[in-house]
Amino acid sequence: MIHITEVGPRDGLQNERKHLTVAGKVEMIQRLVDAGLRYIEAVSFVNPKVVPQMAGAEDVMAAVPRREGVTYAGLVLSRSGLERALRSGIDVIHIALATSDTFNLRNARRTVEQGLEELAAVARDAVAAGTPVVGYLATAFGCPFEGEVPLHRVLSAADVLLEAGCRGMVLCDTVGVAHPRQVQAFVEAFRSRFGPDDQVPLGLHFHNTRGLGLANVYAGYLAGVRRFDASVGGLGGCPFAPKAVGNVCTEDMVNLFDQMGEPTGVDLSRLVETARWVEAQVERRLDGMMMKVGV
Amino acid sequence: MIHITEVGPRDGLQNERKHLTVAGKVEMIQRLVDAGLRYIEAVSFVNPKVVPQMAGAEDVMAAVPRREGVTYAGLVLSRSGLERALRSGIDVIHIALATSDTFNLRNARRTVEQGLEELAAVARDAVAAGTPVVGYLATAFGCPFEGEVPLHRVLSAADVLLEAGCRGMVLCDTVGVAHPRQVQAFVEAFRSRFGPDDQVPLGLHFHNTRGLGLANVYAGYLAGVRRFDASVGGLGGCPFAPKAVGNVCTEDMVNLFDQMGEPTGVDLSRLVETARWVEAQVERRLDGMMMKVGV
Repeated sequence: MIHITEVGPRDGLQNERKHLTVAGKVEMIQRLVDAGLRYIEAVSFVNPKVVPQMAGAEDVMAAVPRREGVTYAGLVLSRSGLERALRSGIDVIHIALATSDTFNLRNARRTVEQGLEELAAVARDAVAAGTPVVGYLATAFGCPFEGEVPLHRVLSAADVLLEAGCRGMVLCDTVGVAHPRQVQAFVEAFRSRFGPDDQVPLGLHFHNTRGLGLANVYAGYLAGVRRFDASVGGLGGCPFAPKAVGNVCTEDMVNLFDQMGEPTGVDLSRLVETARWVEAQVERRLDGMMMKVGV
Repeated sequence: MIHITEVGPRDGLQNERKHLTVAGKVEMIQRLVDAGLRYIEAVSFVNPKVVPQMAGAEDVMAAVPRREGVTYAGLVLSRSGLERALRSGIDVIHIALATSDTFNLRNARRTVEQGLEELAAVARDAVAAGTPVVGYLATAFGCPFEGEVPLHRVLSAADVLLEAGCRGMVLCDTVGVAHPRQVQAFVEAFRSRFGPDDQVPLGLHFHNTRGLGLANVYAGYLAGVRRFDASVGGLGGCPFAPKAVGNVCTEDMVNLFDQMGEPTGVDLSRLVETARWVEAQVERRLDGMMMKVGV
């Protein structure tokens, strides 16, 4: 069984020029749930003045369908975000920081060390308030400013966040530079330090910037990973590579696992319909392949 | 070392709406050679009334740069094509047929058995004339009309063509339905029947129709294959899936192997420049990723 985290409503929409209304976001999430997705990064509790695409997180959370087995996660990058998140009734909090100083300074105006300290406190407070936390390590496979990030720095950052109470970690290839051999090496190193999935659940988050998204997913799968992020339609992009595409496309990844005989719980036809609906909402041609060729 | 067969001038251009002149094709091939490609499927000896994109094969072959270590292959589908090919001075002949009857009947108006008989005779005559032949098995990983093609049919077809003197085989995913687990199984079955690469060189030819092109290349690589087809810019398409993309993109595949530390002999920057030049020639946005994000 493959566990998909659908990040279209957050990582996807956050990088789109066209902003969806709260009602539009809620309908998108409803359609994703109807297609069988069970874990959705639905909102971000960042300052809507900084990321206007993410405005109305509380209103989205108040309106999303609540169903048995459906989990909603929200992104939190600071203490003020945490307070909003806890009030919103979110199921899981995702905290995120880049593992390279240059990227984290540009993105969050903090060094990695400063960011880790603040987010560790956020994680402790969230867990104390009864809300589980998953740690996201951005630029883990490479930074557009610093190049390769030493593996020991990635693992040290994971260590700090796990010590602070995170119940799982996600390694993110924020700018799409990971390659399959590296993915295999990182997963093996992570496992040998933190143990198997029942001790520390490990997820992988790839972008398809250089066309390697699904090759990296397959490499992660071969290394034993069963948790993958993806965004419907391949929604999203990267602020540092304007012409680049976004996250690994959910329905293309579902097709990969369907073909391989690995269940995902997702109805591919319905998800392709949803991708086409999202394409109409964001008013640009999305990069997903299954939505073009059909199921 | 990875051996790339650049199929852009043939499989790529053959599916493009915009037709290149002979001079345009020669310049394209020149640029590919300058970028470091050493094995190029340059022309097709089909009837230009049926495939007008491929007109002028002899003129192209008369004008391409002849350099030490550069091999030009031409596609031959019939006896009349063979005569043209032998006169043209081509280095290697590629013969091709689909492994499913419905596809081969539509494409070549012959059953697989009829096609094999004719192409085996072509192979024998080419070898007798001193020109080596490589066999291409289309729809090996699935047919749009018949679905999965039984592996034993694919292997039997390979057997007939190898018996006829082919010096290597290429398994082709003509419509982009292959998946990594299947690729691994097919390669293992092929090897166990025909032996390792120094006995029967095996190549893989994928299309990126469902976004799995490079995942399949990686699966083939893990199974020991070192010969892959690709087209610059991801040029091409499929006549049976109008909105689908073409072959695996050469420069995206070169980037994969560069990242993995596997030499290809290709200069990625020059190849990206070439892809952008080709994009201008065919007058449509190509699907390659590296050409968008840059090296």
